Amino acid sequence: MPRPPNPEVRARLLEAGRGVVHEQGFNGCGVQEITDAAKVPKGSFYNYFDSKESFAAEILEQYWQSLDERHGPLLRDGRVAPLARVRKFFHAVSQDHRANGFAMGCLIGNLSLELSTGSESARRMLLDVMRRWQRALADCLGDAQAHGELGDDVDVSELAAIVIEGYEGAVMRSKIERSNKALDRFEKAVLPRLLR
Amino acid sequence: MPRPPNPEVRARLLEAGRGVVHEQGFNGCGVQEITDAAKVPKGSFYNYFDSKESFAAEILEQYWQSLDERHGPLLRDGRVAPLARVRKFFHAVSQDHRANGFAMGCLIGNLSLELSTGSESARRMLLDVMRRWQRALADCLGDAQAHGELGDDVDVSELAAIVIEGYEGAVMRSKIERSNKALDRFEKAVLPRLLR
Repeated sequence: MPRPPNPEVRARLLEAGRGVVHEQGFNGCGVQEITDAAKVPKGSFYNYFDSKESFAAEILEQYWQSLDERHGPLLRDGRVAPLARVRKFFHAVSQDHRANGFAMGCLIGNLSLELSTGSESARRMLLDVMRRWQRALADCLGDAQAHGELGDDVDVSELAAIVIEGYEGAVMRSKIERSNKALDRFEKAVLPRLLR
Repeated sequence: MPRPPNPEVRARLLEAGRGVVHEQGFNGCGVQEITDAAKVPKGSFYNYFDSKESFAAEILEQYWQSLDERHGPLLRDGRVAPLARVRKFFHAVSQDHRANGFAMGCLIGNLSLELSTGSESARRMLLDVMRRWQRALADCLGDAQAHGELGDDVDVSELAAIVIEGYEGAVMRSKIERSNKALDRFEKAVLPRLLR
């Protein structure tokens, strides 16, 4: 007889599985590796998730929420000038990449390139996360405009997209180089060129 | 008795397999799908390649060579002003993405995010291709400097890296959006900001 769902097991699968997928890629790991990492029997995975794709959608959501909870406040800190907040935000995210030896990359970017072709639901989830990130950054760039740090003619939503895309490209490079060079370059040379 | 290696079969594996890996991802397809696409028996794959990783290194090399053969001449066309050459080059590459419905992305970027964690040899190959692309672009930016289109103080190698990273981020976004919006934005808003 199947046991009733256990929220603690579900949380463990998401927590441990996120690490496995982030490190090995969505297609680079099987359900077995996810359940092994969570120390639960393989069969129980499907008691909690309809499919590996819906599992991926949940870890993506958790990844974004964790990013936003830890670093989003930097973008909304009214005591700091808006463009300085943007710099602090990306610096903080880059520190996460440093902590992983630059080897894991951004889960959003990784899943974008790996999943968006095959799974329509994953693609929509990725779009949604990208848009939320873009909106959070655009709000801060709007503050920069209100403070006269950016011209009134700047489309802050477009600029936010450009900045995020540039950052994702830099994270990709830092991942293959296993170094902070591209992330440093983003802070020191890309942000100043884009945000003027 | 094993048959002697047949260069035509090898070429067919590379050609058909490149399409499969580009569309489904390196870990998203098996050797079986590659040999099916090439219409050769599965067992023959390892007569031609030591491993799936070394196969990936060869398709990556072919991808770069094809990109450079088809679009590299735009970067080296002395009849056109250097910065206009850069714009023409990225426009031409974006036309390739358009032809794929923006769904496949850049094979270099895809493999960077998927393979660089697990396979050291693939990571080195990716680094090498990235550097060759960067050098080709830096040469053109050096011409721009010689023609007074860029200041003498610009580090053209660094600028080339920044431009490529920005482009890879835009390709990623266009892949999840299945649209030309991010690639258009790269041409109309990112290149002008970076190349001034």
